[in-house]
Amino acid sequence: MIYLDNAATTFKKPINVIEAINHALTYYGNSGRGAYRAALDSGRMVYETREKISKFFGSSDPSKVIFTSNATEGLNIVLFGLFCSGDHVISTVTEHNSVLRPLYKLEKTKNIGIDFIGIDESGKLKYDEFEKHIKENTKAIIVNHVSNVSGEIADLEYIGKTARKNNLYFIVDVSQSAGNIKIDMNKTGIDVLCFTGHKGLFGPGGTGGIVINSDILIDTFKVGGSGVQSFNKEQPDEYPTRLEAGTLNIMGIAGLGAGIDFINEIGITNIHKKEMSLLKRLYKGVKDIKGIKFYTDCSEFEKEPESIRHGSILPINIDGIHSGDLADYLGEEYDIAIRAGAHCAPLMHKALGTVDEGIARFSFSYFNTEEEIDAVIKAIKEIVEE
Amino acid sequence: MIYLDNAATTFKKPINVIEAINHALTYYGNSGRGAYRAALDSGRMVYETREKISKFFGSSDPSKVIFTSNATEGLNIVLFGLFCSGDHVISTVTEHNSVLRPLYKLEKTKNIGIDFIGIDESGKLKYDEFEKHIKENTKAIIVNHVSNVSGEIADLEYIGKTARKNNLYFIVDVSQSAGNIKIDMNKTGIDVLCFTGHKGLFGPGGTGGIVINSDILIDTFKVGGSGVQSFNKEQPDEYPTRLEAGTLNIMGIAGLGAGIDFINEIGITNIHKKEMSLLKRLYKGVKDIKGIKFYTDCSEFEKEPESIRHGSILPINIDGIHSGDLADYLGEEYDIAIRAGAHCAPLMHKALGTVDEGIARFSFSYFNTEEEIDAVIKAIKEIVEE
Repeated sequence: MIYLDNAATTFKKPINVIEAINHALTYYGNSGRGAYRAALDSGRMVYETREKISKFFGSSDPSKVIFTSNATEGLNIVLFGLFCSGDHVISTVTEHNSVLRPLYKLEKTKNIGIDFIGIDESGKLKYDEFEKHIKENTKAIIVNHVSNVSGEIADLEYIGKTARKNNLYFIVDVSQSAGNIKIDMNKTGIDVLCFTGHKGLFGPGGTGGIVINSDILIDTFKVGGSGVQSFNKEQPDEYPTRLEAGTLNIMGIAGLGAGIDFINEIGITNIHKKEMSLLKRLYKGVKDIKGIKFYTDCSEFEKEPESIRHGSILPINIDGIHSGDLADYLGEEYDIAIRAGAHCAPLMHKALGTVDEGIARFSFSYFNTEEEIDAVIKAIKEIVEE
Repeated sequence: MIYLDNAATTFKKPINVIEAINHALTYYGNSGRGAYRAALDSGRMVYETREKISKFFGSSDPSKVIFTSNATEGLNIVLFGLFCSGDHVISTVTEHNSVLRPLYKLEKTKNIGIDFIGIDESGKLKYDEFEKHIKENTKAIIVNHVSNVSGEIADLEYIGKTARKNNLYFIVDVSQSAGNIKIDMNKTGIDVLCFTGHKGLFGPGGTGGIVINSDILIDTFKVGGSGVQSFNKEQPDEYPTRLEAGTLNIMGIAGLGAGIDFINEIGITNIHKKEMSLLKRLYKGVKDIKGIKFYTDCSEFEKEPESIRHGSILPINIDGIHSGDLADYLGEEYDIAIRAGAHCAPLMHKALGTVDEGIARFSFSYFNTEEEIDAVIKAIKEIVEE
């Protein structure tokens, strides 16, 4: 199989990730729930992984790294724990349903106001509109770092400055960028980010988290056993326990930590460069196909791979072939895995005019090869010619 | 290491569980998010695991098996999704903080009323009190099947009858019984149960779930990507998507399914019999130690193992040795892993009078051996004699 659906999950995991998972299965007990060696070792690994994650995202306090089961859970915790009745929030049309649906639910249950910033014809956010939508009751800006549909990158430095200047919390969904693009919370002024573990970070499913880099106090979401303060009727006040309840996914956290080790070893800029070189190769190989359409600013792909500022996603459609059919042909005839149709980002499909046809999304990982890309180009051309 | 902290997590997992996890890591894509083989295979495995779980608990609809990251998450979803302002609920002092803290939060935020049924001197629930506490606004009874402190089993048939007779929802936390004791939702009239995957079911951490066996409609908790109905502003109405948002823990679910296969192969009555025989052996070996105290009805342990009705937990204290010290001695001097102190069940410690000293909890798995139990008996005796 040629796997180009890495934006859904990275299929091939580094060997050290698989080893770490098996090590955890064999040697680690429950963390924070016993004083014997296997439980202490487990607790130590969990803490070290918090440190790795904190450092990886340029954050300063490992105790403010909260483990969740995926980015969606992190986003739910942050959004439901932050907004009160009557608050206003600025977001964008590039958001995934993991942000939209919590916001819509808050709109309905807590009467919060939402403004969505649109995109221009090149697919970029209309940056000058952020400031225009700030109201007296605006509490936060929440943006998707990389669109899971178009692969366009949001300019976090710009938005971060706008947020800071107006004293707003800056929250970022890094599901599609963590592990592919360097993120520095301190530099960009991100207060809270939510990540998933099983995509660019090469961890297993069931992992993800929240990283907090400010004194923001997020209200509890799930509550329950915390291993400490057993006799307190409420969840402990302190992070991370404040937002974590019940037994952690030890095996998953071990795998996630190993994924970050792998990225640090290769170097995130090398990973980005390789993925951009593959993306550019695919783009160059198919751009002259009659009726092909790209839903992103392709001028970026004329640059050298190391200079390309884009997520590891190439979104296309070809006149006369529904995106779902293209994905089916590629899957059934060529064993090439991509995702098509709607991508859980309804406002983005509306903005791009692809509500009906969807989009065929090719997404890359460090483990893809030039030979695979060439085979994909050949396959697409054959399908078009038929 | 001699591991007797299986009530925290089963440390030794069956080989087929480890194999299933590695198979998933190697062959499965994201489920419900693509139409290529690896994604379809993954989706099929997830559905088959829902079927296995539904059947395992005597429930009738696999689509009402909801995957969560642990029992705590399941209990939060059920409790926050069920109770409205002014409702009343009956629970028990045997509950874990995974039930207590959500209830206390509901008491504070939604003004729900709670009555806790106590235990008698033998450690059993005061069954005649359930009916006495039913009010006009009582909506549900929620009980812990097996106390994680004492190991006492609640009589689900009795409580289920009381619930049915009074038209109340019957919710059960089976964290300490799933995989150790046969549970039949149809027979006992359980409407909803919440389980964890990494204890008696032998799955990995990060797994658990809710099984619904009635037409109860639980409100959404986490909302977000569902892979279907992308353009719906709300989470889809249908189970399981109604209560599941974001990418599932594929690897974990594969491991959990394999854990259930293992239990089915051995037979849950054989597992229970072996665990009771080990518990009885430990009890008989230490019961004559001067100053030893058991916090459960020990007359049960006079029966043959197959007839003993008890969870796989033996709770003890010995006069003059704090439970934490006993655990430390066992861990450091003998490499024996148990849990001591407070067990995230504050009302139970109050009922048993062990708020200060805690309890030394020995908990068993199918993989423990008689030789291990004999070594533990010897170690405890040596510690006492010192």
